[in-house]
Amino acid sequence: MKSNDDHHCIFCKIVRGEIPSARLIETETAIAFLDINPVCHGHTLLLPKAHHPVLAELSDELAGKVGALLPRLCRAVTAATGAEGLNVIVNSGRVAGQTIDHCHWHIIPRWSDDPVNWPWPHSQYSGDELEQMRFRIERELRA
Amino acid sequence: MKSNDDHHCIFCKIVRGEIPSARLIETETAIAFLDINPVCHGHTLLLPKAHHPVLAELSDELAGKVGALLPRLCRAVTAATGAEGLNVIVNSGRVAGQTIDHCHWHIIPRWSDDPVNWPWPHSQYSGDELEQMRFRIERELRA
Repeated sequence: MKSNDDHHCIFCKIVRGEIPSARLIETETAIAFLDINPVCHGHTLLLPKAHHPVLAELSDELAGKVGALLPRLCRAVTAATGAEGLNVIVNSGRVAGQTIDHCHWHIIPRWSDDPVNWPWPHSQYSGDELEQMRFRIERELRA
Repeated sequence: MKSNDDHHCIFCKIVRGEIPSARLIETETAIAFLDINPVCHGHTLLLPKAHHPVLAELSDELAGKVGALLPRLCRAVTAATGAEGLNVIVNSGRVAGQTIDHCHWHIIPRWSDDPVNWPWPHSQYSGDELEQMRFRIERELRA
């Protein structure tokens, strides 16, 4: 197994054309196609062609190249579906809902009467917890 | 009001330093800081400094520059929090959960015992709906 091509990965098979997909756009480094089990119709997947399980493992350059495709895809999905809004989501890890271990962006058109219900809980920081968290993340960013 | 600076926008005020924030990283075009009402502790916001309400309105270049910061931020938030997974989310529009009209990426650390419950409904395509959808989005991409 090469690092950029996993022979057992369904998304790598789609990239190689071994499994058909409803392709929307393809660049040298990325591809987008329709999710065949959509949250809502028009649900699009965008991914780097190279096999990287999670977003954290992408190079800055590759993440930038994939990210640069998002505005255009958001506009096209909105125009084509008449969506009232969009969620763009990358899930990393089973606990976060990732089911295919090839990093991918979901572009999900949304409507006020759609079946999606994603409540947004709010936690709190107390005492110096916020500053401690800032310190710890910043230290990792400097590492 | 200039197109890249909204004087009423809380995120523009944070960018200008008029409102304090727990800053994590800052580049020429983007900034990241802790969400003070986190879904989970360590919940980070990443945004372009320029005021654009939604992701669809960003230039490809700006979306790429912001996107290129994600891998590093994902690694740092994971290392600092010990998260088991991450959700990276951009909400566009009220119907999709957007509450501040300055495009921003949420980086949300996740644990198996956290309070988040985001069920993932699955719709279906029947007949030629999938191909029709592919045709419509691809036509918009070519426009």
